Amino acid sequence: MITVPVYRRFSDLDPLGHVNNVVFHDYLQEARVGLIGGLDGVLGPGFSQIVVDQHVHHVAPLGHHRDPIQIDVWIESMARSSYVLGYRVRDEKGTNVAEATSRLAVVDPDSGRPIRIPEEIRSRLEAGLESAD
Amino acid sequence: MITVPVYRRFSDLDPLGHVNNVVFHDYLQEARVGLIGGLDGVLGPGFSQIVVDQHVHHVAPLGHHRDPIQIDVWIESMARSSYVLGYRVRDEKGTNVAEATSRLAVVDPDSGRPIRIPEEIRSRLEAGLESAD
Amino acid sequence: MITVPVYRRFSDLDPLGHVNNVVFHDYLQEARVGLIGGLDGVLGPGFSQIVVDQHVHHVAPLGHHRDPIQIDVWIESMARSSYVLGYRVRDEKGTNVAEATSRLAVVDPDSGRPIRIPEEIRSRLEAGLESAD
Amino acid sequence: MITVPVYRRFSDLDPLGHVNNVVFHDYLQEARVGLIGGLDGVLGPGFSQIVVDQHVHHVAPLGHHRDPIQIDVWIESMARSSYVLGYRVRDEKGTNVAEATSRLAVVDPDSGRPIRIPEEIRSRLEAGLESAD
Repeated sequence: MITVPVYRRFSDLDPLGHVNNVVFHDYLQEARVGLIGGLDGVLGPGFSQIVVDQHVHHVAPLGHHRDPIQIDVWIESMARSSYVLGYRVRDEKGTNVAEATSRLAVVDPDSGRPIRIPEEIRSRLEAGLESAD
Repeated sequence: MITVPVYRRFSDLDPLGHVNNVVFHDYLQEARVGLIGGLDGVLGPGFSQIVVDQHVHHVAPLGHHRDPIQIDVWIESMARSSYVLGYRVRDEKGTNVAEATSRLAVVDPDSGRPIRIPEEIRSRLEAGLESAD
Repeated sequence: MITVPVYRRFSDLDPLGHVNNVVFHDYLQEARVGLIGGLDGVLGPGFSQIVVDQHVHHVAPLGHHRDPIQIDVWIESMARSSYVLGYRVRDEKGTNVAEATSRLAVVDPDSGRPIRIPEEIRSRLEAGLESAD
Repeated sequence: MITVPVYRRFSDLDPLGHVNNVVFHDYLQEARVGLIGGLDGVLGPGFSQIVVDQHVHHVAPLGHHRDPIQIDVWIESMARSSYVLGYRVRDEKGTNVAEATSRLAVVDPDSGRPIRIPEEIRSRLEAGLESAD
């Protein structure tokens, strides 16, 4: 598990003063790219990674604060050409505000067909996880 | 079921030329507000509606086109203080690109606690569904 | 001059119920890409176009409506390696809500240095203008 | 002058790997709300502040980095019912990437007409400037 800080913006807020539910998916993307070690891990030569399934459960409303939220992200499971990430989103006080999972498929960027997860991605994911210990 | 057209923007595209997964949640929000008959149905006097759970399954990548996508939206189930919407997102050719569900809770805007779904929301949802026949 | 329709989204609105000033720049981008005839005109082989200067003057607040806003866009002036676009944004009733200009530079995508505007872009701009007559 | 740090997101990047010009306006909004001391200074009881004019000059492309950009923001001039802010945007190395100005009008939230700048806003602006010394 690694923990990625994400800073909120005033434009993230809806008319109720809460972070809009759409914006949470932007936050999860930040955590995901943080784990994989940068954008070049999302789209490398010979592969691209796409979100196939995403589930978000909102536990409590999230307001605005200068201090970042903290997103715990970990690998739930790994298959031949896809893997599942788990996330826990905590506010500046440590309160759990959302939980989520995403299934990512690794595909050939030209054909769009699933391919075996390249060693590069496996090692980046493992390195990301180790770096947090 | 009603069908809500949504127009894509160039800023919706990621570096692969596909609509970014985050933006789909913006599209679903458009369909949802379209069904409920406007923003005043999302936040009325004495209630507000919040997304509690959302699941999206991406079936195929979505590119850019001048013509709108079409989002079918319907009520999957209704409980005392929450309901579940189902969605199907089709591209300009009618190809299914994503399926989704959201559970919405109706809450007291001050306390944030679930309240019985007001008659106003029930009748708006039903009117929305009828208007599509 | 061509006129590009742009559809508003509920997420464009700020807590006052007006389209947030940040979103106007997204609208202008839609008009700009509409004029140039698609994304491949913004970034082609051997060139890319970047916004160097942008000025927006807001004349009246813009609310939400199902019908699109209309953006008139035209070429104010053209130089060796840059050109200036003018815009007028009108709401669904035809009321003028904003006026804007952008200066775009055509640059070498590798070095980032200004280059002479390629014939392809000149002809696309002219074709875009003619198509509206 | 105060300096407001703003963190970039991966979704801020365009297909060229640069922060999209539209997103700069989001960054400027962060600096502006930072100066005024929070959202309640943008929209208080009896007044609201709206952007009337905005000009941005891009000096250099801005890429992605974990460290925040730094936005210097100051009061250029103050009139009876409006004021002008100046901004300088610097990347993580201190390189100047953009300069901007915004004219904000203080209006009656019901009529939308300009009103004399309330003492509360004047003192918040001054406090914001002092807090940076």
